[in-house]
Amino acid sequence: MSQEIRTVVVIGCGVIGMSWTVLFLSRGLKVIITDPAEDAQARFEKYLSDTWPSLPAGFSKECADNYEFVEDVVPRLAEADFVQENGPERVNWKQGLFETLDMYTRKGVVIASSSSGLPSSAFIGRCQHDPSRILVGHPFNPPHLIPLVEVVPHPGSSQTTIDTTLAFYKSLGKRPIHLHQEIPGFVANRLQAAINNEVYSLVSRGIVSAADLDAAVTSGPGLRWALTGPIITNALGGGGGSEGFDNRIDRLGPAIRSWEDDILSHRFDWSQESLYSLQKQVRSYLQTVDWERTMSERESVLLELLGAKWNTTTMV
Amino acid sequence: MSQEIRTVVVIGCGVIGMSWTVLFLSRGLKVIITDPAEDAQARFEKYLSDTWPSLPAGFSKECADNYEFVEDVVPRLAEADFVQENGPERVNWKQGLFETLDMYTRKGVVIASSSSGLPSSAFIGRCQHDPSRILVGHPFNPPHLIPLVEVVPHPGSSQTTIDTTLAFYKSLGKRPIHLHQEIPGFVANRLQAAINNEVYSLVSRGIVSAADLDAAVTSGPGLRWALTGPIITNALGGGGGSEGFDNRIDRLGPAIRSWEDDILSHRFDWSQESLYSLQKQVRSYLQTVDWERTMSERESVLLELLGAKWNTTTMV
Repeated sequence: MSQEIRTVVVIGCGVIGMSWTVLFLSRGLKVIITDPAEDAQARFEKYLSDTWPSLPAGFSKECADNYEFVEDVVPRLAEADFVQENGPERVNWKQGLFETLDMYTRKGVVIASSSSGLPSSAFIGRCQHDPSRILVGHPFNPPHLIPLVEVVPHPGSSQTTIDTTLAFYKSLGKRPIHLHQEIPGFVANRLQAAINNEVYSLVSRGIVSAADLDAAVTSGPGLRWALTGPIITNALGGGGGSEGFDNRIDRLGPAIRSWEDDILSHRFDWSQESLYSLQKQVRSYLQTVDWERTMSERESVLLELLGAKWNTTTMV
Repeated sequence: MSQEIRTVVVIGCGVIGMSWTVLFLSRGLKVIITDPAEDAQARFEKYLSDTWPSLPAGFSKECADNYEFVEDVVPRLAEADFVQENGPERVNWKQGLFETLDMYTRKGVVIASSSSGLPSSAFIGRCQHDPSRILVGHPFNPPHLIPLVEVVPHPGSSQTTIDTTLAFYKSLGKRPIHLHQEIPGFVANRLQAAINNEVYSLVSRGIVSAADLDAAVTSGPGLRWALTGPIITNALGGGGGSEGFDNRIDRLGPAIRSWEDDILSHRFDWSQESLYSLQKQVRSYLQTVDWERTMSERESVLLELLGAKWNTTTMV
């Protein structure tokens, strides 16, 4: 049960592990961290002091020092109430690691991997104790700000493991989604790949400039997608209400299918020629970007947006 | 030149025409409106008084009554400095209308159609005067709030027409994008179709619930797409800078292509069975939605988001 989770073990403290740790600390949890990099602790301390002052509404700022770096995590695994693993995406490496985690953590403790590519069925093969408490908890970067986390069980993950994981992430203020099946790219990366293929096609074909393509999203449908997802947006386009989606399909179905056919016949094909044209146009656009300002403004507007959504009852 | 545009003629005052009119009025323009519906003026007056109090930052609130409804617009077309047409999407009807607009407006005055489906090359065939000043200016609904407008010339639209239209829309605070070619669905509807096909596939296959699918966007990539477009988001994922996009393609290209292949092999096929499964799951999700609250919260958070972006230097 999530209310019993007091101590989280974080394996791997790179970009993702650091952000998970900030989230866990700001929710009052104790965090035991291990990372083989010599400068891992120093790097985390800088990240923590950079991040902590601007934590979003609802985060506690009293528990910043409730963490401990350990060189050998094995003797400390018995203390874990939950494990969040953020190691490299290499099958062999993860197989060995999960064998160890499974051997030394207490019975029933969930072991979640932040893996974005490998499904957990790929690395539980050597677990001799209880692989049913292993699954993927894939965050969207950075996890301490972006609510989405994809919970992806393998076919043998137990219902209790799934329920405990969903409840734990929810208790942290995150919005977990539950995938009923391991599929390549999970959900968020697939949706991004679906849109990006058409983005690459339109830019490489010279239909619009790269700058106009970005603006087409941030000044148009992107504004909607931050607030209402594709299904509700579809339904509102059909007049809202529980029949809104059906109305839109009835009214626009043929047009949508004709667009899909045209998209399909111009798919970005990843040929050298297409890549050359795409990358050439993108590079000249990116040279005009003020990166420092873009990153700092993105973070500050994101915090305002999250704050505004936080104050509603319907948005996640 | 956009600085000479003082009077806009709005043809058709339905959902889109009303919102365009509010935008034009709030930018100090005079608007002459025609619409065959008997209650058009009463409906607009209600829309105006509902909308006006909550106009976003940067809009003038002094010119709400600078409009005029006319039954016969022909004798007034000589007053137009710009025409925004929002009539039904029927080729024959638009052909006749544009013949008239072309005949009675002054030389060089731009005639823009809000058409979302028909390209302007489909309805300029009967224009005897100057079809080179005709193009599509397709807004994203509602135009007075959402900055995007897609400027789509036909092959014979003049450069002056394109430049004047882009400058005029920019002067209203909008973010026009310029399509170099007429393509089905233009850009925004194609990008939505690209993502929606995968959305429909994932939900109809039972990979995730419809509610989780929406959350996957609004709590994840949708938050990014409101702030930075797909190209900049890709580049930031590759470490930012003018090589960031190339770095991401080098590092993730093979993974992205494997996701694309899997997406393609599970495309939503619009069969009766797929539609049945999709619509069944969507309907039961939509029955849980509080529509009134969703719409009012979407509008208020959208205004906060637009206000926050308005205060930055890099975002559009």
